[in-house]
Amino acid sequence: MRDTEDHIIKISKALSDKTRILILKEVAKKGGIGLTCSGAEEIAELSQPTVSHHIKILVEADLLNAEKSGRCILLSVNKKTLNEFGSLISESFENL
Amino acid sequence: MRDTEDHIIKISKALSDKTRILILKEVAKKGGIGLTCSGAEEIAELSQPTVSHHIKILVEADLLNAEKSGRCILLSVNKKTLNEFGSLISESFENL
Repeated sequence: MRDTEDHIIKISKALSDKTRILILKEVAKKGGIGLTCSGAEEIAELSQPTVSHHIKILVEADLLNAEKSGRCILLSVNKKTLNEFGSLISESFENL
Repeated sequence: MRDTEDHIIKISKALSDKTRILILKEVAKKGGIGLTCSGAEEIAELSQPTVSHHIKILVEADLLNAEKSGRCILLSVNKKTLNEFGSLISESFENL
């Protein structure tokens, strides 16, 4: 039960920021993005340190997958985490 | 689209706190709680000002319904908001 609460809080924190929502949308829209490859710094027109900071939080919350590919890191949205979180939120506060 | 993002951020912020998760669980478990009625201060063994502060945030995010009943305020979990939020999260970051 404790783990469930911590999980909800971790994902919620990651989702409670406008820039991170923007990054998730951008990565989803492009069906994945290559980081440190050409064009990577252009995510949502943000500076590279800002992008790195927020991507770290999104990856740690398992909302973004980060896969190494040569000198690039390929980012994609982790649909599994999002779907499971969606179900968890719906189910966690049922009358017991 | 902007509204959707703001909505996600508002609900996520409300859910990203341990005490608020505790309160939601407590209200759900009891199938509703009467505030300012006997027993109201006992939510999750928290002090009354702490409870009030967090309940305000939960009500503003539509996660708790607050219904006046005589000298009491009856709190219940807003399942509709939770379910819609769950679906929204699953759908918002589809590849476009």
